[in-house]
Amino acid sequence: MKDYIKKPMDIEKGSFEIIGEEMGPHNFNEEELKIVKRVIHTTADFEYKNLIQIKKGAIDTAKELLKKGVTIYTDTNMALSGINKTALKKLNCKVECFVSREDIKKEAKEKGITRSMAAVEKACEENIEFFVFGNAPTALYKLMELMKEKKANPKFIIGVPVGFVGAADSKKRLEEDIDIPFITIRGRKGGSNVAASIVNALMYMLVKR
Amino acid sequence: MKDYIKKPMDIEKGSFEIIGEEMGPHNFNEEELKIVKRVIHTTADFEYKNLIQIKKGAIDTAKELLKKGVTIYTDTNMALSGINKTALKKLNCKVECFVSREDIKKEAKEKGITRSMAAVEKACEENIEFFVFGNAPTALYKLMELMKEKKANPKFIIGVPVGFVGAADSKKRLEEDIDIPFITIRGRKGGSNVAASIVNALMYMLVKR
Repeated sequence: MKDYIKKPMDIEKGSFEIIGEEMGPHNFNEEELKIVKRVIHTTADFEYKNLIQIKKGAIDTAKELLKKGVTIYTDTNMALSGINKTALKKLNCKVECFVSREDIKKEAKEKGITRSMAAVEKACEENIEFFVFGNAPTALYKLMELMKEKKANPKFIIGVPVGFVGAADSKKRLEEDIDIPFITIRGRKGGSNVAASIVNALMYMLVKR
Repeated sequence: MKDYIKKPMDIEKGSFEIIGEEMGPHNFNEEELKIVKRVIHTTADFEYKNLIQIKKGAIDTAKELLKKGVTIYTDTNMALSGINKTALKKLNCKVECFVSREDIKKEAKEKGITRSMAAVEKACEENIEFFVFGNAPTALYKLMELMKEKKANPKFIIGVPVGFVGAADSKKRLEEDIDIPFITIRGRKGGSNVAASIVNALMYMLVKR
C-alpha cells in the first residue's frame, strides 16, 4: 500500500487528464470545459457534461465580479465549505452563508418563513450580486420572486439545487425566465459539491494555484 | 411562482416517496434502505443503489457508537458541514475535521506529508473509532496502513472517496482487506455529500427529527 499517489495536485492533474480522455466529443470552449471537467471531477459523473447550461457571457460576468472582490452568497454551509478559501482570499472575495446567521434565524421565526428564504431576503437587502444555490430550490425561487418585485439585483447566479421536489422546476424557471448570466444543471442533479466546484473553477481561471 | 412547496420537511418526505417509487426492485432491509434512499436524495443519482456496499453488522455497529456519544472523524470540512448538527447534539456526539487544525498543519509541514495524512495519524493517536472519508483516498489508504501497523483501532468506516485517481482502488482495498464494519461505494463515485448523507441516515435511525 506504499505506492499510491500522495500529492493532491498530482491526483488532480491525473484526474483531469482521465476526464479529458473519457468525456468524448463536445462543443465547450476552453473556459467552459474547465468548469465541466471540474464538476465531473467532483462527482465522477459524466452525465453533467450533458446537463450543464452556461449562459453566453456568464463566465466573463462571473470573472468580473470575482476580480472586483465580490461577496458570494451560498445557500448552504456545505457549499461554503467547498469553496477554496486560499483562492478566495487572493481575490479579496468573501463568501457568506446567511442561513446560519443569528439575525436570519430570528427573522425567519418572526416572519414564519424558512431560514433559507429569510437568508435570500437579507442577501438582497445587502445588495449581494453573486448567488450560489446548491441545495435549496425554495431559496432560488425566492430570489426569482424578489427579482420580479424589483427587490433583488443579482448579477450572476449559479443555480444547481439537487433533488426530487422543486429542484428541476426551479432551474427550468431560471433558464427560461431569468435574463441575467447564470450557470445551471438541468434536471434533478446538482448539489452543494457541484455548486462549490463551479465557483472554484471560475476562481482558478483568475488565480495561480 | 407562489405555488412551490416551502417546507423543507415536506420536500424531503415527497422526495423519499418519489425515490421509493422509482428505485425499482432491491434486496435492502429497512435500515439499509434508509441509507440508500438518503444517498440518492443527496445526489439524485439512482446508480448509488447498485454501488453501495454495507457490510453485515455495520449499521448496528455505527448505531452503537453513535449511542455512546462518539467523536466522528471527517476527512473534509465539507463532509463535516453536511452532518446534521442538531441530531449530532441530541446524541452527544461530536464531529471533527482534523485537517483544519493548527497542530495538524504544523505536523504535516514538519514531516513533509500531506495534511490529510497527518490528520489521520492524529485521529488514530486520539483513538478515534468512527471514520468518514468522502474525498481523500490518501487518507483512507493511510488509515488502512496504520491498521496494518496496529497503530489504529477504528470500529466503523464510511469510505466513499470520489474520483479518478486512487478513489476506486482505495475502496476496493477497504472491501477486500479490512475486516471491520464499513459502508462504501464501489467505483469512482462518492463524495463529501454522500459521506455526510450516510452519517445523517444513521443518526436519524436514533433521533426524532
